[in-house]
Amino acid sequence: MLHPVILSGGSGSRLWPLSRQNLPKQFLSLMGDLSLFQETVRRVGALPDVRPPVTVCSEDHRFMVGEQLQGVGSANGGILLEPMARNTAPAIALAAWHLVASDPNATLLVLPADHLIEDEAAFRDAVARAAVLAEQDWLVAFGIRPDYAETGYGYILRGDGLGEGGYRIERFVEKPDLATAERYLAEGSYAWNSGMFLFRAQRYLDELLRHAPAMLAATSDAYAAAESDLDFIRVDKESFAASPSDSIDYAVMEKTDRAAVVPVSCGWSDIGSWSSLWTVAERDEDGNRYEGDVISVDTRGSLVRASDRRMIATIGVEDLVIVDTPDATLVARKDRVQDVKAIVDKLKAAGRQEHLFHRKVYRPWGSYDSIDMGERFQVKRIVVKPGAALSLQKHAHRAEHWIVVSGTAEVTCDDRVFDLHENQSTYIPLGSVHRLRNRGTEPVELIEVQSGSYLGEDDIVRLEDVYGRS
Amino acid sequence: MLHPVILSGGSGSRLWPLSRQNLPKQFLSLMGDLSLFQETVRRVGALPDVRPPVTVCSEDHRFMVGEQLQGVGSANGGILLEPMARNTAPAIALAAWHLVASDPNATLLVLPADHLIEDEAAFRDAVARAAVLAEQDWLVAFGIRPDYAETGYGYILRGDGLGEGGYRIERFVEKPDLATAERYLAEGSYAWNSGMFLFRAQRYLDELLRHAPAMLAATSDAYAAAESDLDFIRVDKESFAASPSDSIDYAVMEKTDRAAVVPVSCGWSDIGSWSSLWTVAERDEDGNRYEGDVISVDTRGSLVRASDRRMIATIGVEDLVIVDTPDATLVARKDRVQDVKAIVDKLKAAGRQEHLFHRKVYRPWGSYDSIDMGERFQVKRIVVKPGAALSLQKHAHRAEHWIVVSGTAEVTCDDRVFDLHENQSTYIPLGSVHRLRNRGTEPVELIEVQSGSYLGEDDIVRLEDVYGRS
Repeated sequence: MLHPVILSGGSGSRLWPLSRQNLPKQFLSLMGDLSLFQETVRRVGALPDVRPPVTVCSEDHRFMVGEQLQGVGSANGGILLEPMARNTAPAIALAAWHLVASDPNATLLVLPADHLIEDEAAFRDAVARAAVLAEQDWLVAFGIRPDYAETGYGYILRGDGLGEGGYRIERFVEKPDLATAERYLAEGSYAWNSGMFLFRAQRYLDELLRHAPAMLAATSDAYAAAESDLDFIRVDKESFAASPSDSIDYAVMEKTDRAAVVPVSCGWSDIGSWSSLWTVAERDEDGNRYEGDVISVDTRGSLVRASDRRMIATIGVEDLVIVDTPDATLVARKDRVQDVKAIVDKLKAAGRQEHLFHRKVYRPWGSYDSIDMGERFQVKRIVVKPGAALSLQKHAHRAEHWIVVSGTAEVTCDDRVFDLHENQSTYIPLGSVHRLRNRGTEPVELIEVQSGSYLGEDDIVRLEDVYGRS
Repeated sequence: MLHPVILSGGSGSRLWPLSRQNLPKQFLSLMGDLSLFQETVRRVGALPDVRPPVTVCSEDHRFMVGEQLQGVGSANGGILLEPMARNTAPAIALAAWHLVASDPNATLLVLPADHLIEDEAAFRDAVARAAVLAEQDWLVAFGIRPDYAETGYGYILRGDGLGEGGYRIERFVEKPDLATAERYLAEGSYAWNSGMFLFRAQRYLDELLRHAPAMLAATSDAYAAAESDLDFIRVDKESFAASPSDSIDYAVMEKTDRAAVVPVSCGWSDIGSWSSLWTVAERDEDGNRYEGDVISVDTRGSLVRASDRRMIATIGVEDLVIVDTPDATLVARKDRVQDVKAIVDKLKAAGRQEHLFHRKVYRPWGSYDSIDMGERFQVKRIVVKPGAALSLQKHAHRAEHWIVVSGTAEVTCDDRVFDLHENQSTYIPLGSVHRLRNRGTEPVELIEVQSGSYLGEDDIVRLEDVYGRS
């Protein structure tokens, strides 16, 4: 059976300020309603004879993965939590161990969570052909037929034909300079290395044994000692930490003698930068892509994204990327967007938060957004999902006022438990043990006004938590 | 005696989004802590033998003018409210009528509220020389010695010398093309028309009698029928409406045979656009002027203004103006900022509000800022100044929750009056007659959560108001 393995480990800063460590690119709705992760889940769900997807992600993103899987009604083949980033080869090894345990003949379709594929029929066809090669014990990379001389990707040079439109891989080549990329394009035997693969799980583990035995051992130990926590499989931290960090390309694909490539034209993009998003987006006749409330005069070749309750006006500008969020706006020349990394580095160096968190922070129970802040107060808009509850908690330095503006909240405050309806309020004194729960079927929205001398997120004692965070 | 007359009638859209109809350029702190209006007040206050300034402004800005005068501890020579805009000549006539009533020998120093003057000693010197000429019954225009070939200003050509560094005005000339401006600059006998004047009030009225008798009559009637309201002098609307609308240049200066010019170099700017603000601002070695939280990479020749609790990041951009406010961000090429007008026109045409009001709205009692909004709720941060009170009011469609986060508020709710301290809250039911007052010496800050089916500002019945608005 075919088991999709979705690698969702990226913490992508290249689409900052929209993508941040706590809510990276794969979880954002960049093109349409679904996130890139959800599009990936939906896409693999449409394949024939396919099992529920296995997701490999970081601890920080586990609730987001769970929620987004639910959001597209997908079954869940397992959510494997990496205790730390170790690149793609160990992540795939975890998935392989997980799958061979129940299906010794499992075939893995490995997909990064954050890629765009426009022609799904072509993709499905390529998967079917790769699956035939995988049965013949090939490890198949999907190569993208280049339609221009891209210098930002690695390339795969194909060798002899293997049938099914597949080829032996002659060699992998690093990101070329422009002249080389143009030659690759002209020669026609090179394809972009998409980071998507298909092979039998056991075969992958066998290759690790030959080419990366330390990685095989470390991931085997990490998975064997894994603990289940709600929907999540938390592998052993110490064992996983012992694994070498390496990509599947270096660790396996470049070393095995069974590497194959299936070239495909499927409207693929890794959306690796704001300019590549502009490239794949529909644009107006002046070459502009606008999202949200944008008013422009004489603007050309630009990507402009406004955020909620805010407008952006542009005059006489060309080839810009303007991306607005509630706490940060980026204005960059479109051909310089790779330097977003330099901004993120400056934020890190300054000990700031804007590369880590959005103003609106997602939690397993819903979200909060810090809508105002003063010297001794903070105002948050809190949304609690149906059926969800915050932890039973208390604060040492702040009191809280809650005003429900939508839905009905169940409030615990010390020894009282009571319902709070729309347009009702309550007061949580400093030090009180309290909890907020939504027992209804619609989201509860409330405004929280915090008052106190210290208002940091770390002023919290969790006494009980349904999400295992106490 | 010398009476400064400050013309504060502008509703300047050229510095949108920072300048809006309800809070135009003259009231903004563009360079340093004081607003341009306050800088003007402070500057004239430093002149020798000067009386308190008379301000002419629109009805909408009266509380702002009063507050900003107080803010710099200035005495108040009268705040004349124009019922509608009639250009500068009638506005100055109102001030002349106001002043000759108590001081028949009053000399007026007429100054737009929104100009910048860097060399105050040169300005004071020019005023002293102009005052001598005014005693000889000249109407003196201050001409700015051009330091480059500006095409955006009118020019004044000087004639024979009159002593005191003054000259007869040979003629006024309209905004020239670049070649003409360059010739004016080379010839040395042309000066920019600054819009600043000095003359005896009675002489000005005499000139109106000869050259604009309808204006004289209308403004005389309007002032004679004026009503005092708190600190304000509200001239008669019907009479004032009958006045022709004209500038002092056309109505008087170009017609009188007693027009003089005193050329001066005093670091003058009318800050008529974002690019002229950039020109006069101190800049870093890359030619950038940053205000607020700005992080940049390879940025040159740009003006970037971030707003509170928001950062702006720039990469690889050049000669841009980026101005951020809580609800709108402008990104414009620096040499295209005059087209801000086109954006404002689009906002008008769309029936929007962003050219009229800021998210934070100033009221005579303080301010409110709409920090969040949902389908059936709105959250405001309200600041009540010491000694101030909102009107006694009620709403037909909304209830309100108030949480005090700083200071102590006196709350009236139907027949109860009580104090609300920091970290205390109260509920104002729909339909209740209520009032908020600050009897303390520090500002009261509170968070208001409105809940209801309609949340517009017009759902208000004012039963009593200390500011005469009920």
